[in-house]
Amino acid sequence: MTQTPCHVSFVPPFMMAVMCTWYRPAGGVSRPITTFSRCVADENFATVVLLVLALAGVVYVVRSRRGRARHHTTVKSNDVTTLGPAYSDKAVAEHEMVTVTNPINKAALYDAGFSYPGHTEFLAALTGVPGKEVMMLASPMLRVVPVTIHQSLRSALDSLTPAMIATAARTTAAALRRDFGIPSPRLAIAGLNPHAGEQGALGTEESTLVAPAIEALRREGIDASGPHPADTVFHQAVHRGRYDAIVCMYHDQGHGPMKLLAFDSGVNVTIGLPIVRTSVDHGTAFDIAWKGVAFTDSLVHALGFARLLVGD
Amino acid sequence: MTQTPCHVSFVPPFMMAVMCTWYRPAGGVSRPITTFSRCVADENFATVVLLVLALAGVVYVVRSRRGRARHHTTVKSNDVTTLGPAYSDKAVAEHEMVTVTNPINKAALYDAGFSYPGHTEFLAALTGVPGKEVMMLASPMLRVVPVTIHQSLRSALDSLTPAMIATAARTTAAALRRDFGIPSPRLAIAGLNPHAGEQGALGTEESTLVAPAIEALRREGIDASGPHPADTVFHQAVHRGRYDAIVCMYHDQGHGPMKLLAFDSGVNVTIGLPIVRTSVDHGTAFDIAWKGVAFTDSLVHALGFARLLVGD
Repeated sequence: MTQTPCHVSFVPPFMMAVMCTWYRPAGGVSRPITTFSRCVADENFATVVLLVLALAGVVYVVRSRRGRARHHTTVKSNDVTTLGPAYSDKAVAEHEMVTVTNPINKAALYDAGFSYPGHTEFLAALTGVPGKEVMMLASPMLRVVPVTIHQSLRSALDSLTPAMIATAARTTAAALRRDFGIPSPRLAIAGLNPHAGEQGALGTEESTLVAPAIEALRREGIDASGPHPADTVFHQAVHRGRYDAIVCMYHDQGHGPMKLLAFDSGVNVTIGLPIVRTSVDHGTAFDIAWKGVAFTDSLVHALGFARLLVGD
Repeated sequence: MTQTPCHVSFVPPFMMAVMCTWYRPAGGVSRPITTFSRCVADENFATVVLLVLALAGVVYVVRSRRGRARHHTTVKSNDVTTLGPAYSDKAVAEHEMVTVTNPINKAALYDAGFSYPGHTEFLAALTGVPGKEVMMLASPMLRVVPVTIHQSLRSALDSLTPAMIATAARTTAAALRRDFGIPSPRLAIAGLNPHAGEQGALGTEESTLVAPAIEALRREGIDASGPHPADTVFHQAVHRGRYDAIVCMYHDQGHGPMKLLAFDSGVNVTIGLPIVRTSVDHGTAFDIAWKGVAFTDSLVHALGFARLLVGD
């Protein structure tokens, strides 16, 4: 095992200021947190670039040399750079990159003038592909990709189009090939209505929205099937191994089964970027900050999944 | 073990005609199926009344004497009565009744002039409480009750009211007390939108529809909490044991997690009737009829659950 040099970079000052606001206990003093560095120290980590917006708000960018050789990395805090350059095209081209993020408090970020809905969109902008980001929830047994995400169920219904479904599925297929090592991914496209509309008796969106998307995907040679009833397709994927990912029409359609299956081990993966980003699958949990009762399993899984994705 | 006399009743002729249409192989001859009688023979069954609309389409009504003593029942076909009288108020009053149903083909029933959406509504009418029926999906680890069921997602959104939510929850609480032996049931009421609306940022139905229902329930002394995010509440119920049932806003919100958790062991329970009815949790599967490859696990679970509910 070779000890490879790496860099730890803090975020630009404006971000630091923001971060500091959201881990300061009421009336207390900002403190750094060591969750991430402890996790990294505990892990034999791959050749990756890591961005951790830690629970405490300190952002580390850990870069190491390109390559897939197994080695240890260690976290040092003596190479402070800015966040943008670390994610420039050049950096992306030069490095095998995976990003691991911790939860952020969006309200605090917005208050401080942060202009992105979340760090998913932030990373998409930094890597030069704004709007290309797609969320995947992944566990060893199940991968789900919601086409619509953080919007009301009614607005999800109103905004869904065949193009959105096809784009999410296309990005999923490409990511499964590139990052997950699945040469011919099998995608299940979920229906929107109960029993996938039951031939129109329980809704028509399967024929007007979902089927056209599936036809387009199949014409491109993508193995997409459906529309599948959303109450049985998860069982088919998990217990029968029939699909490599399920493309879901709205947030809870995919999140409900996934969080029941893998509440602590589910990893949020952003696909569609030049880099791969994994994230913990929970919020900031301020109510238990500094009490020593938090589970770090999800972060450990996010780190482990990142390692898996770079072939370690 | 006492051999208790029981009766096997065939359905009225009009129903028989209907049933015969849906298990006739293409161009073949109608044949009875023995799935149910085999199951009953295999089971030490409680003092129950069973209605089985068998996969083959033959309907048995099996009645036995009131009481909770353990005994065998055997199925005989020499006491043909009509279905209605078996479910009269008198029969309900005189007998400890549980009904177990197999799947039916609704299209065939409708074609033959059957005027009920399904046998749930049929049983509600027969037992004199039309409109009072509520569907529950139950497994040993999880119980979910969808407020809206077989309608498109958009029409579910349009039709949902606080009164509907409260009625479903009220029926659930009563059934958990009466049939499940839970003196103080803890109900989780799911939100409609992602993250239960995130304080209005992702939808307003939590404050306009769900919260008022919860307030009404709590005023009645029912332990109802929420609106809970529908992507985490299932984990809380199953793995943390926090709730006895989850009231869901639409079909797939509850069915998705349940079928992932208990595809073969989930039982459809109709609550809100004078009798309790359990049902298999799958369709007619005509494509594998007479091939000898069907799993009967779900029927076995439905029978077992029925036995559980009558205290056997």
